[in-house]
Order: sequence, then C-alpha cells, then structure tokens
Amino acid sequence: MNGAQALIRTLANCGVDICFTNPGTSEMHFVAALDSVPEVRAVLALFEGVATGAADGYARVAGRPAATLLHLGPGLGNGWANLHNARRAHTPIVNIVGDHATYHKKYDAPLNSDIEGIARAVSGWVRSSASTEDLTTDAAAAVAAAAGPPGQVATLILPADVSWSESRGPAEPVAVTDATPPDAERVRAAADALRSDEPVALLVGGRVLGSEAGLVAAATVAGGSGAKLLAETFPARLRRGAGLPSVERLGYLAEFMELQLAGITRLVVVDTKAPVSFFAYPGKASDLVPEGCEVIDLLTDGVDPIAALEAVAAELGATAAPDVQPAVRPTLPDGDLTAQTLADALGALLPEGAIVSDEGNTSGLFMPGATAGAPPHDWLTLTGGSIGQGLPVATGAALAAPDRPVICLQADGSAMYTIQALWTQAREGLDVTTIILNNRSYAILNLELSRVGATEPGPTALSMLDLSTPQLDFVELSRGMGVPAHRATDVADFARLFREALAEPGPHLIEVVLPPLL
Amino acid sequence: MNGAQALIRTLANCGVDICFTNPGTSEMHFVAALDSVPEVRAVLALFEGVATGAADGYARVAGRPAATLLHLGPGLGNGWANLHNARRAHTPIVNIVGDHATYHKKYDAPLNSDIEGIARAVSGWVRSSASTEDLTTDAAAAVAAAAGPPGQVATLILPADVSWSESRGPAEPVAVTDATPPDAERVRAAADALRSDEPVALLVGGRVLGSEAGLVAAATVAGGSGAKLLAETFPARLRRGAGLPSVERLGYLAEFMELQLAGITRLVVVDTKAPVSFFAYPGKASDLVPEGCEVIDLLTDGVDPIAALEAVAAELGATAAPDVQPAVRPTLPDGDLTAQTLADALGALLPEGAIVSDEGNTSGLFMPGATAGAPPHDWLTLTGGSIGQGLPVATGAALAAPDRPVICLQADGSAMYTIQALWTQAREGLDVTTIILNNRSYAILNLELSRVGATEPGPTALSMLDLSTPQLDFVELSRGMGVPAHRATDVADFARLFREALAEPGPHLIEVVLPPLL
Repeated sequence: MNGAQALIRTLANCGVDICFTNPGTSEMHFVAALDSVPEVRAVLALFEGVATGAADGYARVAGRPAATLLHLGPGLGNGWANLHNARRAHTPIVNIVGDHATYHKKYDAPLNSDIEGIARAVSGWVRSSASTEDLTTDAAAAVAAAAGPPGQVATLILPADVSWSESRGPAEPVAVTDATPPDAERVRAAADALRSDEPVALLVGGRVLGSEAGLVAAATVAGGSGAKLLAETFPARLRRGAGLPSVERLGYLAEFMELQLAGITRLVVVDTKAPVSFFAYPGKASDLVPEGCEVIDLLTDGVDPIAALEAVAAELGATAAPDVQPAVRPTLPDGDLTAQTLADALGALLPEGAIVSDEGNTSGLFMPGATAGAPPHDWLTLTGGSIGQGLPVATGAALAAPDRPVICLQADGSAMYTIQALWTQAREGLDVTTIILNNRSYAILNLELSRVGATEPGPTALSMLDLSTPQLDFVELSRGMGVPAHRATDVADFARLFREALAEPGPHLIEVVLPPLL
Repeated sequence: MNGAQALIRTLANCGVDICFTNPGTSEMHFVAALDSVPEVRAVLALFEGVATGAADGYARVAGRPAATLLHLGPGLGNGWANLHNARRAHTPIVNIVGDHATYHKKYDAPLNSDIEGIARAVSGWVRSSASTEDLTTDAAAAVAAAAGPPGQVATLILPADVSWSESRGPAEPVAVTDATPPDAERVRAAADALRSDEPVALLVGGRVLGSEAGLVAAATVAGGSGAKLLAETFPARLRRGAGLPSVERLGYLAEFMELQLAGITRLVVVDTKAPVSFFAYPGKASDLVPEGCEVIDLLTDGVDPIAALEAVAAELGATAAPDVQPAVRPTLPDGDLTAQTLADALGALLPEGAIVSDEGNTSGLFMPGATAGAPPHDWLTLTGGSIGQGLPVATGAALAAPDRPVICLQADGSAMYTIQALWTQAREGLDVTTIILNNRSYAILNLELSRVGATEPGPTALSMLDLSTPQLDFVELSRGMGVPAHRATDVADFARLFREALAEPGPHLIEVVLPPLL
C-alpha cells in the first residue's frame, strides 16, 4: 500500500465519502489509488472553483466533511474564492493539494509556488506532510480539524513522493471532543438581557439555522422573552417553510439592517457575529449595532449553540411551543416574467424537501418572501460574498441529497465564474434545476456605484457593469456542457419548464431574461 | 480629484495604457474614475483569470506593463493561476486589488481576507496603500517594480477609503535604472567555455527569444563557437519563422531533454535557468544537467541579455551572419483531421505577422515543427504550467497588436478553465481565431499516469482523465458567448473555415475533434 492508498483509506476511516477532483501530474498516484477505496466517491470538475464549491455544498447538506483534490498552487488558487465562502460558512472541507516531490522543490520547476502561503490565507489548518510515515496521521488530523465544531477549511499538502512511497497503512480517526456544557453565567446574562422590558433582540446564525431543533430553540427563547428574533444575513443553511418557526434575516444593505435593529438596547448573539456593514461607504457606519446597545455573546468555545439556547429557554421558563410559519403560497401568476412574478411562480411551485442554492442576487430579492410558506426546504446562501458559488454548491448539495430536488437560483454575472459546474451535473446525472436570472448586467454594482457616492458615472464606468454586449446565451452554454436547457418566454412557460425539469431525472437549466430591478 | 482618479492618472503617466477589470463594490470609485483618464483603456472580463491572463498576453506583446483591477482576496484568488504563469514569464503586471476601507477591516466583514498573504505568494512586489497621500507614489513604485527588468508581478492593494478620499494629484514615473554593462569576467568565462572542443551548448530564454536582435545575437555566438543552440522549454515569447535564426526548444519530457543535452560538458545559460524536470518521477532525475557538465550563467543583475550575448560574440570574434530558417511550409494535406494533418494545415496557412497563443498541449505536439518555416510570427507558450492561459493570453495579445492576426491553439481540457475569455473577445471585436483541439480527454495525464508508475489504472482513475461524458460542444459554448463558431469536418473544411476566420474581422472559433495522440 502506497501513501496515496493509505491516505484515501484514512479519509474513509474518518467518514469522508466524497472527493471533488481536478488533478494533474503531481496527483496521479492519488488518482491511481482511488479504485482501491471505493467508499470515497471521486467526482471530477473541469475547474477547481467547481470542486471547492461543490465540496462546500456537499458538506453543508450532508453535515460531514468533504474532500477536494487540487493541483499545486494554481489549483488551490482557482479554488480559493469558493473556499473563502466555505470558511465563512464554517463548512468542514479537507483540501488535498498535490505538490512537487520533497526533493524536487529546491529546483523551483515551473509549477513550484508558495502553496502554504496561499493555503494559510483561507484555511484554519494547514500542514505539508513531510513523509509517508506522517501522512495518514496528518490526514486524520486534517479531517478532525475540518470537522470542528465549528467546521473549517483544512488543507493538507501532499508532496508527490510522500504519495508514492510505501506506507505502513491507514490511520484511525481522531476522537471527537465532547461538546462543552453551556456557560451558566452567559446563559443567565442572556436570559436577563432578553427579559428586559426595553426592546431586545436575539440574533442567531450558523448551526442554529440549519435544523428544526435549532429554529425551535431560538423561537422558543424569543417567544418566551418577547425578544425580536433575527437571523444573520447569509446563513450557510437555513431550514424554513410551512410548519417551521420563521426567522427574519437581516438585510444585505446597511440601511435595512439599521431599520431592523433600530431601538434595540440589548442584543444576544448566538453562533454569529454582531452585525456590521458588508462594505464601507463614505460617511456611513460600519458597526451596525445601535449606539448604546449591549451585545451579549451566548457561546464560548466548544459549546453547542442549540444546547445553549435550550438552557436559556429553561432559565427563562419558556416552554410554550413557538409560532410557526403557516402554509401559504402565492398563486401562480400570469403574464410577463419579472423578479416578482418569477418569485411568485417559484413560491407556488417549490417542491417539498427542496434544497435551494441561492445566488440570485438582485434579481432574487423577492424569492425568500415568496417561498416563506412553501413546504419545508433548505436555503443555502452566499456566505462569504464571493460570487460564483451558486452552481457549484448546488452540484455538491445534489450529491449529498440524491433524493431531494435541488434548485439553483443563479444570477447571470455570477454564473459565469463557475459555469463549468453544469458539466459535472450532467456527468453525474444530478437532479439540479438551475434558473438563470439574466438581467444582462452586474445589477448590484449599479446600485453600489451610486451608494459609494459616484453619482454621475460616465459611459466607461457604466460599461463595466453591462453584460449585454454581447448577450450571454445560457441555453447554448448549458447545452454545450450537456445540460438540457430552455429559455422561458413568460410565467406560464416558466411554470411548464420548471415542472418538466423537476419531473425528469438529471440536470436542467431554464434561462429567464428579466428587466433590471434597479 | 479623488485617490482613484489620481491613481489612474499616475498609471497613465507611467505608461500603463490598459486595465483588465472585474470589479466589485470596493472598486466602484476606481470604476467611476475611469472616464476621467481615457488614456487607460478598461477591458471588462467575466472572470478574473481572464483579466490576469489577458494582462499577461498584452504585456508580453506590447513590451510594457498592463494593469488589472480585481475585487479583494477572492478576485485575486481567481486571477492567481494566470499570475503564476506571468510570474514565470517575467511579465510586467500591476494588479490593483480593492480592499475594504482601512477603518472597516477590523470588523472582519464577510469579504475580508488576507489579501497580502495570497498576493505575496505570486507577486515580486506587494504594498497596501495606507493613505491617499501615499497612493500615487505607491502606484508609480508598483509600475517601476513591475517593469523590471526583468518584469514581474506587482500587487497594489487599494483600500476603498484610500480610493475615495481627496488626493493631491498624480505622481510622476519612477526613473528607469540604466542597464548594467555585461560582466567582463562572465563574458570571458562563457566565451572560453563555448570555444571548447568538447560538446558545449548555449541555452537561451527570456528576453533573448522575443526579438530578432536576441535570436541573431544568440545564433551568432552559437555559430561562431560551434555550440549547440537551445531554447528554454516554455518561452514567454518566441520570435520565429522564415528568415530568422531558428532555435531548438528543450522538450517538455525529461527523457527528451536528456537526449538533447546528452554529452554536453559545458552549458552557458542566458536569461533562463539550468534545465530541471517539469515534475518529479519515481527513480528519475530532477536535475537534467548532465553529470559533470559545468554550468556558466552569463547574466548578473541588471545586465541586458542581448548586450551580454553581443559581448560574447565580440570576445569570440564571431561576426558571421548566422544561418536562418528557410521559407519552407508543409503542403496543405487532404483527408481526416489528426494532430499531424492539422499541424500541417496550420503550417501551410499561418499568416505573416501572426501571434500564436499555444496551449495545444498534447494535440499541439506537431505545431511548432509544421510552422517553423512559415512567415515570421511570435509564439507565446505556457510559461508556468498552469493551464487556462491560452484564451486569455490570446485576448490580451490581440489588444496589444490590433493589426496582427492572433491564433489561439487551445486544448479542450485547459480551455474550460477560462472559457469566459471568448466573451471579452466578442465584446472588444478582437481578431482572434481560436482552434479548439478537442481530444475529449486530459490526454497529457494519460501519459503522466503511466510515467509516475501507475501501470494498471482502474476505471475510476481512468474516468478522472476522461472528458467524453458528456462531450463538450465548443461550438455551442462559443456562440453562447457571442463568438461565431464552427466544427471542422476534415482538413479541407478546416482550411476553408480558417481562411474565412482570418478574412473576417472579429473573433472566431473552430472546433477540431481529434483522435487521441497517446
């Protein structure tokens, strides 16, 4: 058994069952070893940003680490942007990054680069295996580091000779540390704050939002204390829909967040951070906690957020079952496709158990509202703000949940960063329905251009936000990668195409050309 | 005048006349300022790897620095792989990477990341401008650092508030340091080595290969001393064709290089490094300099390589005009398209003054030979081994030389890393003819899989190299981005399509489906 075989066997021992790959020569022993460990499924991507984004989507849905196989520094570079999103999502990912043989590094061959430097800028854990002897314990440590809690990106650098040399065999998993009990003082402080007669809010994020148990715990605390219940702007995974407690997400724009938080005197945060502006703007605040508002962070290291919320509920004596979202859906509209009618159509048709990968950006503004009362589903958002996440995350989600329909709400501009994901969807026959929201511009930037104070942009500036010359034809792009695709002409046509896409196995793409929202 | 306007004016003052952009909110003041400095042309890319690769292609052909505008860490990450190639090519590139406002960084908003960390891993020069006051002198320093010689990647990090605050105005360029005269001792040592009666070789690279003057200087030295003249494997820019001295390139495979260098006792290297294996292989050598061969590096810092070669020629008394490549071209073949017949067709039809961006990989094996005697042209190669360079470099080259035909030889697998370049070609109406060499596999890896010793790969391993399920349709992909495209059915059809593409302004794509070479 060589190092690569022992490494993959170790990954399997540690519960990793998938590896998203885009290999090169330095990873050929890893590739050759894949057949010896069929428990680890290898999924090929045409571009590393697809591999890392798919690993993110897989791990968000499966709740366990996913691996990637990347080719030296450039491969890690290509995967970096979606690893940034995964880092913000606290997603457990183990990157295996091939490197030159240890003795070959000193020759600085063309593909040599500072892999550790680029890895450290996005990973919570980085190690280069110095020998085949260390490799499997390094791999087990990488999986444990990735798994957390909270999850993080771990990068294991694998020199080619460490991969090809003879191994003593795989390592066993590193034992998981038990969760720390909630800190009694913080629980009391949170309960005291929430009991206040003044306006208070409970802001939850991370693991609280991914399960019904978390939503119920948060809503029970809010309901029992009269606190306003808020969710972070961009959750990794939000469980939602009819019959579940509903949580109001903080808006993306600072102005919206300020309205949502206005007058709050105490803010209890759980598994997220106190709200800040996504970007800075001239003359506008960065810290969005209202002046004088006290912030209480409920968690300390190693504490499970749901257990902590349950402890706060007990401290409050809050036992009443929380209100839940009623099953109300929009009526399927008629007529032209707009951001609102498309959202209503999605709300009317979203199937039970759907997983929505949401990178709809401006055109997707009405989607969360229109789907709030749809049957229970999961909503995956752009956690780190690095566009190009939607299609890869949908790809990974579909592999993690093959029995659930995956819907990708994908804006046009951001689609073009990782459009190659469609090929992997076709290759693996994944049940992903991609809806391209094509407004033929970087619409968000038209808004941001004015928000940063650039009030009279010239033609060159405006052309930098314009995607209409030439127009992108997503139907042709999709078919070029083997995914059946159609352009919807109106709402009725969209509804027909959407139903057909859901009914027929395998990936589909529907392009919707929308008027600018802004 | 705000910081952004003064920055762009400074870039123009320093001779930068193009900026390849993929901006976001933090770069909106830079975008808004573009109209105030029309001397700097802004070219939008849909993906940052296109922007950085196009900057590389532009600067290789124009011989002066090109700028990019990238969005924080993720934007730089997406552009990293082609910056790696530019670093190896010694291409002068100035990256402007937007960042959060200086006072906003501490809030660690979602898009915050370690930009300097990722920048240092690929840049020879990195600076984050701390204030608008420093910005323009920082920018002038960045251009000077990028310009070299030799050229390098310089990264200037631009916090949003440094961009939007009031500036005192642009900076003047940093004065260029005069070249250092050739080192007399090294010139004598090189001449002595080359005069030897034993087998000797002159290995040239970098700036020597990009101009007729460099080729003539190298060939004069080789001709005057009887040394074997060799070029590095992957030149940034190789001037070649009928009437020019021809230089044998070292092969990609170590086995080929070892044959080319066999028996050499003295090796004079000029503007490149002594040969090493591209990758390490079990039981094979990394250092490919023959045992006992003495290596003499002609250059010291700041010395112009062509002046140094001319000094060696003078020392040798070598005055005879060197042999040049005769004007011989293959006959246009008939019949089926194969790697060989396609190469012959290209050799028969390559127009004078063409710029060839070569990422043909295995399918392109015969292209250099078949075009050796074509009319004079330039050949741009994959300097850093990071695939996804071909289409972006062709895009930048066409902008640098609008009156010359640009031919992109592009393998299928590597095309899919930066296929978005086609959209920029269409948007800018560039005269690029892309020839997709589609063998429906990562063919090079089939070779490498056996070369690393994996002799009996299983079905999963082989599937990681296979791009046939589903087949990529490059005609649809190209049309989806606004570039007219056709699939050639045989050599005659290819010749017709190629001639038409050259005759008609704007970009074209021809897909050629090839049988596997290996």
